[in-house]
Amino acid sequence: MAHTGTHSQPVRACLLLVVVSVWVQQVDGVWPLPQQLDQSADRNSLSPQRFSFTYGRDSAAQTGCSVLDAAFKRYFSIIFPDFTKGSGLLIVKTRGCDGYPDEDSDESYNLSVSEGQAVLRSVTVWGALRGLESFSQLVYQDDYGSYFINKTEIVDFPRFAFRGLLLDTSRHYLPLHAILKTLDAMAYSKFNVFHWHIVDDPSFPYQSRTFPDLSNKGAFHPFTHVYTQSDVMRVIEHARMRGIRVIPEFDSPGHTQSWGKGQPNLLTPCYKGDVPSGSFGPVDPTVDTTYKFMESLLKEVKFVFPDSYVHLGGDEVSFACCIMNMTAALNRTSIVWQDVFDYHERIPQDTVLEIWKGETYQAELSRMTKAGHRVLLSAPWYINHISYGQDWRNSYAVQPQNFSGTEEQKKLVIGGEVAMWGEYVDATNLNPRLWPRACAAAERLWSDEEKTLNADLAFPRLEKFRCELLRRGIQAEPLFVGHCKHEYDGL
Amino acid sequence: MAHTGTHSQPVRACLLLVVVSVWVQQVDGVWPLPQQLDQSADRNSLSPQRFSFTYGRDSAAQTGCSVLDAAFKRYFSIIFPDFTKGSGLLIVKTRGCDGYPDEDSDESYNLSVSEGQAVLRSVTVWGALRGLESFSQLVYQDDYGSYFINKTEIVDFPRFAFRGLLLDTSRHYLPLHAILKTLDAMAYSKFNVFHWHIVDDPSFPYQSRTFPDLSNKGAFHPFTHVYTQSDVMRVIEHARMRGIRVIPEFDSPGHTQSWGKGQPNLLTPCYKGDVPSGSFGPVDPTVDTTYKFMESLLKEVKFVFPDSYVHLGGDEVSFACCIMNMTAALNRTSIVWQDVFDYHERIPQDTVLEIWKGETYQAELSRMTKAGHRVLLSAPWYINHISYGQDWRNSYAVQPQNFSGTEEQKKLVIGGEVAMWGEYVDATNLNPRLWPRACAAAERLWSDEEKTLNADLAFPRLEKFRCELLRRGIQAEPLFVGHCKHEYDGL
Repeated sequence: MAHTGTHSQPVRACLLLVVVSVWVQQVDGVWPLPQQLDQSADRNSLSPQRFSFTYGRDSAAQTGCSVLDAAFKRYFSIIFPDFTKGSGLLIVKTRGCDGYPDEDSDESYNLSVSEGQAVLRSVTVWGALRGLESFSQLVYQDDYGSYFINKTEIVDFPRFAFRGLLLDTSRHYLPLHAILKTLDAMAYSKFNVFHWHIVDDPSFPYQSRTFPDLSNKGAFHPFTHVYTQSDVMRVIEHARMRGIRVIPEFDSPGHTQSWGKGQPNLLTPCYKGDVPSGSFGPVDPTVDTTYKFMESLLKEVKFVFPDSYVHLGGDEVSFACCIMNMTAALNRTSIVWQDVFDYHERIPQDTVLEIWKGETYQAELSRMTKAGHRVLLSAPWYINHISYGQDWRNSYAVQPQNFSGTEEQKKLVIGGEVAMWGEYVDATNLNPRLWPRACAAAERLWSDEEKTLNADLAFPRLEKFRCELLRRGIQAEPLFVGHCKHEYDGL
Repeated sequence: MAHTGTHSQPVRACLLLVVVSVWVQQVDGVWPLPQQLDQSADRNSLSPQRFSFTYGRDSAAQTGCSVLDAAFKRYFSIIFPDFTKGSGLLIVKTRGCDGYPDEDSDESYNLSVSEGQAVLRSVTVWGALRGLESFSQLVYQDDYGSYFINKTEIVDFPRFAFRGLLLDTSRHYLPLHAILKTLDAMAYSKFNVFHWHIVDDPSFPYQSRTFPDLSNKGAFHPFTHVYTQSDVMRVIEHARMRGIRVIPEFDSPGHTQSWGKGQPNLLTPCYKGDVPSGSFGPVDPTVDTTYKFMESLLKEVKFVFPDSYVHLGGDEVSFACCIMNMTAALNRTSIVWQDVFDYHERIPQDTVLEIWKGETYQAELSRMTKAGHRVLLSAPWYINHISYGQDWRNSYAVQPQNFSGTEEQKKLVIGGEVAMWGEYVDATNLNPRLWPRACAAAERLWSDEEKTLNADLAFPRLEKFRCELLRRGIQAEPLFVGHCKHEYDGL
């Protein structure tokens, strides 16, 4: 017998839904694995016609909360793709809904599914998004199309605060839709940082307000292969609605060949003997105009991208510091590639260092954290690199805190990033190369390591999650022989 | 000044079009490389409004020829995607248009593009299709959208008669549209055989008229993961219209686990001591019912698939001959995997042997051709295997006739096959994994080896062809850093 439960709790966000206890069936869990998940074999029936997400009476977020109102709609149609109505939402404005997720955002949530109702509790709207995702993964259909959810208790929070994914839009241009779709899939895996490696040597697709010639002359094409200001806004807002930060990278002083096309005298000219050879080195640190240009550009970046972090690159050259110091004045936390640490003695203490060199990353983790720096690990997750078979297992086996150091040092590892560099990747192969391979790192960064050591145990849960990605329209490649109920149709 | 040229020749198929000489511009060629290609810098303008494909007066194929009428429409919209009309076709029935391409089909053609007209000459409609493809690759647009084609003379024919591509629809089910799209791209690369590895251990998606339980019980799903008779017809007709043969593989006596689900007593039961273990080995050769079943199934296969070849598998077991001999009575040429040759002394002389074992393929080519067998080479073209970077270069470096043997032996190499096995491949990643990587083998199998030895020289032409594949809607992955005018939009 179906009935509508209403249930208010002294919590900040809360959802209510209609469930009916029916009979026993085993289900498969959630990816990434929640910190605590207790599931009973008691199965509850869900009726799409009667189902609704509702804010609890004591919830600080109420109807009108942009992030959660949109998430309610999104998750309703993810869970019940054949039903277009059913959610009755209240509309009230509340604090926190119009902000951006940041490094300190509390993403924890508790989810309790019992007969007649489910209650989701979280401190912030960002935590509520994570809980909605888990909730959506708990619902399943039987062969007759009826929906069910089992009695479940989840207590969940991320292991690392920074769970990033890098896309490279310079080596190949990625159309806006490819980026938005990647953000969708990131939210499904609980990634929370989009590291936008937006420019590099081959092209400069960012359409700057201050220096329009950078993309006019440095993009692959000045109209079709650029990100307009409106494109960038759309990315940032699409990400915000999913609790994802957008951290742009303006990599310098190396990796700037494309910058030189629209900004004369920026790069260091190369010489053959006494004659300019026509080719250029990195940004020229010997002229004042360089610093003025960089300062103006970074001011614009600060204006356009709301996140308190900015990635300054600094890889594969030996004099990045002069550039980096400028950002302190801009009141932004900077991330730089490990090279800046490797080649310099003095680095501002709050600078976050990102490790990309594969062979030596554990020793590097020790050194950097010993020097008191916060660290991001990316080296073992260069996911553009592919090999035949189940290479997700390598990503899954990574242990970011397994290096010699004190407990204090280990806490300085704030997270990691999956990096999809673009030498051989564009929108044609991005999705099957990313998904579900990136999910391995997503679980490593979110879940309790002790509970997720065994890739063989993870395999069936990841297989199920991959089918769920397909059902949601993400072109995720297969893990091995088999099938999904909803296949990608090849169109 | 544009004018319509009409030009008839004592040839069997002929096309006429409107061109105007304008000025000089370099263009990039054709993939796979024609046997002879002489191109001038004289550029002719094409007007979509005035352009038409027409049959020559003396052409045996005339309007009404299903294959070429459809090809005219197809290539018109490939060449001029923004124009929906323009081709005026005569309607007359002629011989050869309603048949199927076969092992002896003459695919040669001559193409002559001069001021005011282009003439395509071929012996068969299949040759005309190859010429239309080359013609379509010669047309290009300037930055203002105008169409051009340079004065060109092409004399062309395939190096090998058998240029195949294998898809595996048992390890993962490939939706019909994924197969049809693959046939489109095959035609663009001048592949001419679709080797349909339709069933295997994991699933039996072929919906048999005679034995419906094979798919009812052996497919991943009896309704959503099967190929109906009508699906199979569509594949065969779609392939025929592109000059592509469809050769089905019913791999036995091994690789038949899925068969056993719908056909009791077909497989050899395994025992633990004296007790059946519940698992099964290959097809049971010790009982009469096996032979009756196989004979009925092959009769149906013969009825459904018009090609004179059938692939019988025979890999990874040691007693395939008993099965193979039955096909002689069915009046089909059989192809078998190399294992049948490796483990048996007597094999019918007209049986075609296919090499799949990578390490030893040159020695195997020597042995098989010395025994007088026709051979297909697939071992170095297992394209499901991937590695990071430009692995198409390995495929390109293959020299199918570079083994120790006489000239007579070398002629017994009738061609080769790109094999896309399905352990880790389904519709989500099929296209970017196939294209443009398979194009390397396509050129090796079509073009003059002496003119196509250098992968570096081939690179820019392949890059251009890959962009052309994108423009035609094929999700072909990038070869390296760069861009195409028409990117895949990620939707």
